[in-house]
Amino acid sequence: MKLKRSPLAPAGFPDLPAIDGVEKWVAETGAKYKNRPDVLLFKLCESAKVAGVFTKSSTPGAPVVWSKARLLEGAHGGILVTAGNANVFTGQQGARDVQTLAGFAARATGCAPKDIYVCSTGVIGEPMDLGPLSEIFKTGAFMRKQASWLEAARAISTTDTYPKGASQSCLIDGVPVSLCGIAKGSGMIAPNMATMLVYLFTDANITQPVLQSLLSENCATTFNAITVDSDTSTSDTVLLTATGKARHRQITALSDPELTNFKSALHALMRDLAHQVVRDGEGASKFIEIHVTGTHTDSEAKTMAMSIANSPLVKTAIAGEDANWGRIVMAVGKSGIRTSPEHLSITFGPHLVAQNGTRAQTYDETVVSEYMTKDHIRIGVKVGDGSGHFTAWTCDLTHGYIDINADYRS
Amino acid sequence: MKLKRSPLAPAGFPDLPAIDGVEKWVAETGAKYKNRPDVLLFKLCESAKVAGVFTKSSTPGAPVVWSKARLLEGAHGGILVTAGNANVFTGQQGARDVQTLAGFAARATGCAPKDIYVCSTGVIGEPMDLGPLSEIFKTGAFMRKQASWLEAARAISTTDTYPKGASQSCLIDGVPVSLCGIAKGSGMIAPNMATMLVYLFTDANITQPVLQSLLSENCATTFNAITVDSDTSTSDTVLLTATGKARHRQITALSDPELTNFKSALHALMRDLAHQVVRDGEGASKFIEIHVTGTHTDSEAKTMAMSIANSPLVKTAIAGEDANWGRIVMAVGKSGIRTSPEHLSITFGPHLVAQNGTRAQTYDETVVSEYMTKDHIRIGVKVGDGSGHFTAWTCDLTHGYIDINADYRS
Repeated sequence: MKLKRSPLAPAGFPDLPAIDGVEKWVAETGAKYKNRPDVLLFKLCESAKVAGVFTKSSTPGAPVVWSKARLLEGAHGGILVTAGNANVFTGQQGARDVQTLAGFAARATGCAPKDIYVCSTGVIGEPMDLGPLSEIFKTGAFMRKQASWLEAARAISTTDTYPKGASQSCLIDGVPVSLCGIAKGSGMIAPNMATMLVYLFTDANITQPVLQSLLSENCATTFNAITVDSDTSTSDTVLLTATGKARHRQITALSDPELTNFKSALHALMRDLAHQVVRDGEGASKFIEIHVTGTHTDSEAKTMAMSIANSPLVKTAIAGEDANWGRIVMAVGKSGIRTSPEHLSITFGPHLVAQNGTRAQTYDETVVSEYMTKDHIRIGVKVGDGSGHFTAWTCDLTHGYIDINADYRS
Repeated sequence: MKLKRSPLAPAGFPDLPAIDGVEKWVAETGAKYKNRPDVLLFKLCESAKVAGVFTKSSTPGAPVVWSKARLLEGAHGGILVTAGNANVFTGQQGARDVQTLAGFAARATGCAPKDIYVCSTGVIGEPMDLGPLSEIFKTGAFMRKQASWLEAARAISTTDTYPKGASQSCLIDGVPVSLCGIAKGSGMIAPNMATMLVYLFTDANITQPVLQSLLSENCATTFNAITVDSDTSTSDTVLLTATGKARHRQITALSDPELTNFKSALHALMRDLAHQVVRDGEGASKFIEIHVTGTHTDSEAKTMAMSIANSPLVKTAIAGEDANWGRIVMAVGKSGIRTSPEHLSITFGPHLVAQNGTRAQTYDETVVSEYMTKDHIRIGVKVGDGSGHFTAWTCDLTHGYIDINADYRS
């Protein structure tokens, strides 16, 4: 089916900077998609460091198993991404296919197969057909001209309705540093340590352990704080590459004060891409922010925020622009986190709708209903005086989600 | 909106036996619904024993709080059910309103307010309007003629598209005993200890502690084994009344061998009603049975079965009659229960689709796709050699669910 561009999509694809030390190419096998690239290859420079986080699914795809092993070995030769078949639940043959693909990419970029990260996205459970991929690597014609970031973002899409990219910049030791990234994802989004496929790049000079800490830490409040449909993918992968080409001294400690700006920039970059994934949530017509405060711990706040973000009744009410805050009460109640209704208050945007265990005295259905027509809905839930808090982002549940998932084998 | 009768509905409402010791009446306030009763009153005999289970939501409705307290006191005077407003998150006023309602029912049935269980179903967060209820109790005209079970089942409906009832019979000590029950529920169904509203009656002579054990035990594999949309209601209540009018000796121990038939009959009754709730799941077009085996414990099997039953991607694939077993792999993987893909096998009805971590060699998409067109889909998941097992029941996710919940404030 032909999917319409999400109404929540950004105006266009941003201008992303070249990252010194990163080369990239795209190719079109024509196997599943017509008139668009479906293969993306990155070559990384000698000095590159790579950090990664992967799905916590107990049925991960063969590419995830392979790439996790590469990360532990410190691989940093290149990244190959293929779209159309996720190579998940494909047994020993699936594992061999990943190795074959790594071999193709290794020969193309002049390194060893074990230096290559492999990622695949698409349908689960079908054997890969390596024929078309073998063809494009045999000729190697696709490597004559480097790809743009826009082409790279398009090459990794499946049910995405727009390509996703973002960039940031900052100073380290007074030296300008660039960060940029591309992402794909719109369904099967409830990341558990990562999201579908995200590739982040910077020319900063940072050791791998520090880079890994920065990535893991920021995932918790960005990619792991979003959900489209509560379904965790078997292929979630986020890779962050630092090429080390920027001419500042190498950063070797997470506590280095010169990392402050970089941390903010990385967080902003990751949050931007995470929001773009939600804004392309299958069938989405509203972007929803859920802010829970007053729990004992952040973890409790996250459980409660996700209980609301994943509630079909909350999501359909928002799709219907219905100020049905009673469904928020329901989702708080089912979360498993202890609360007393009399300490619970709920806001929709600037409007207090419930307080002290009952409807707010100032509640005006007409005013709140007007607020519900906006395309960015902010829900605030305060459950007590604890210092725990968490913000989750999701989208509404509409006919579009049913259309896409009842008809399309993604 | 006018809802169409579920395509999964039974042919008609069954003939239910009168239960000696139970009187019932229905009334129509006209407050929210037109041309249908919305109030149901039961009067129980002196010898009646009542067992109950209620929602585990931390934001339960005022009627749940009231009725839980009555159960602890051994109340057995009567049960009042009102439809249209759930009286949830209504603060002190909500609690006072329940007491007022209990007062109405107590005067009508000749007992004290504290002898009355009160249940309400409908919208959350709106203050009750007791005016219309006060009116119908003032005249008492509705009590001139007892109601049928069909009228009783209709009186407790909200988004239900058909009235739900079932019966069983068995012998205790050679004496015939009847069991019957009515239920309501179609959305906000992911019971945690109970389901929306279920009223079970028997003339068996069983002590309250034994009755309570029987109810709790059977809930685990019936009402707590179903889900429509993963959203746990704030009003879930199951009450089981035994009037003791059947002339067998009183059963005082759960281990009494004479209870064997009764246990089977009660389980069958509860499962029947639980299935009827799923078959009326909002927008349902398929009844889905998910049978998980081979886990270490039953609890692990339940977690996994519910992960599949609540997956929007699994439910939309089935709505689309797509044999997309990869989404079962995904839901197994995200469940949090440790599994090895190589020990996982999946069946759709009689067809083995996946085995030993890959697609089954005998898999034939045409044959399995044909199976997916049935309206009762059986999914089997075997994850190892453990003795744990669990069966869950759910329905598919269709446009109907979005229609009902984006448009209707239930």
